[in-house]
Amino acid sequence: MKVSRYKKEDAVTYALGATVVMEYLNCAPDLVEAVIMHPGFRSEDTIAKIKEITSSKKISLSVEEKPFNILSQKENCFVIGVIKKVKGHLLDGSHVVLVNPSNAGNMGTIIRSCAGFGVMDIAIITPAVDHFDPKTIRASMGAAARVNIETFETFEEYASRFPNNSMYPFMLDGSTLLQETEINEPFSLIFGNEATGLPATFSKVGQPIRIEHTNNIDSLNLPIAASIALYESTKRRFGGHLSK
Amino acid sequence: MKVSRYKKEDAVTYALGATVVMEYLNCAPDLVEAVIMHPGFRSEDTIAKIKEITSSKKISLSVEEKPFNILSQKENCFVIGVIKKVKGHLLDGSHVVLVNPSNAGNMGTIIRSCAGFGVMDIAIITPAVDHFDPKTIRASMGAAARVNIETFETFEEYASRFPNNSMYPFMLDGSTLLQETEINEPFSLIFGNEATGLPATFSKVGQPIRIEHTNNIDSLNLPIAASIALYESTKRRFGGHLSK
Repeated sequence: MKVSRYKKEDAVTYALGATVVMEYLNCAPDLVEAVIMHPGFRSEDTIAKIKEITSSKKISLSVEEKPFNILSQKENCFVIGVIKKVKGHLLDGSHVVLVNPSNAGNMGTIIRSCAGFGVMDIAIITPAVDHFDPKTIRASMGAAARVNIETFETFEEYASRFPNNSMYPFMLDGSTLLQETEINEPFSLIFGNEATGLPATFSKVGQPIRIEHTNNIDSLNLPIAASIALYESTKRRFGGHLSK
Repeated sequence: MKVSRYKKEDAVTYALGATVVMEYLNCAPDLVEAVIMHPGFRSEDTIAKIKEITSSKKISLSVEEKPFNILSQKENCFVIGVIKKVKGHLLDGSHVVLVNPSNAGNMGTIIRSCAGFGVMDIAIITPAVDHFDPKTIRASMGAAARVNIETFETFEEYASRFPNNSMYPFMLDGSTLLQETEINEPFSLIFGNEATGLPATFSKVGQPIRIEHTNNIDSLNLPIAASIALYESTKRRFGGHLSK
């Protein structure tokens, strides 16, 4: 199997590591073009599962070392999945909206939290980091196989597609505290760039929210802020009997 | 200024990047042994502040390129702080307790959230990643300059020092939901290793809590779980007038 270092223009990306590859084989096998195992891979159970799924789904399976030298610097990566890149299409419902996110690892961590809290649709407003980057897929621990991600050129384009969504931009000077804001479904939880946050114009979009913190720090890390918002917005779904 | 690649045995560690160094100069100048600026550093405001503080605190300041080649792979690092490593001592009050954490970046992100939510004392139960690692300090965005971190050889040693703390181990099978648990101060929010979580024996410690998520994922990322717990445990401190 010929592989080359990932580039944004490529038609495929890579899932690195057994856990990540297994998520794709279990949730989105049609996206898996090939699986490569390292000759030193010794997890008999996982090997058996990989053989079973690749065989039943007619996915190419090979055992070779060279692709690992090209694609992975991590010592503990023994399985690579070659993954077709397919444009996502957002469904109606609640969304996370990322405006100009710039860090691939952060993107993956946010995807993991979205899947964890059951918000399976993510809008990305460009310019933005490439969400197909293998670093994103790895940081998502494979949750990237489960979510729908659609990119939009402008926030307006996104907002006009989903006129029924309640919009909640998260801003350091948002006018209400997260814990005191009623979040109505379907919701759009909107977050800005890691370094610059959302442009001030977002204060006129829906209900701006702030997650209050001490002035010991300038801001929370982006995936942390997004995950706290996801937790607070979805916790009533999880068997909670206390009202919000 | 002679620097060498960081090792755990060293008496000093490094703050990489202007933001991180400024945090140390502002909050813990006594810990700063020296500041090194890159010849290409051009932020006049920051340079003026660095000159002012290093001069008034009699901290060595130099302009040279070589230390950057040794210590930093990041293109955007133009200032290095040489930081004395001093053992922390936990104060009475609420704490975050990390049992066998293994990732330096995660540790830094947790430190940033602790400072953000005003929980300034962190216990680490060894074996654990070195919390003085420059990767930790950088991921904390300099918040490492503000918190107290003390390491303990066993959880029992920690617990016996703080008999008045209410203990809340976070476990995937914790018996109560976070949003339905009354968290009494002073609290100890206890988290396990990234890959393995807390040992099952912690189910007998205090009130085990779970952060409910869908089975789309195996678990939340450790800094995410810790930060959600911090948010929920401290939100009543932040002007919220809704009762929990």
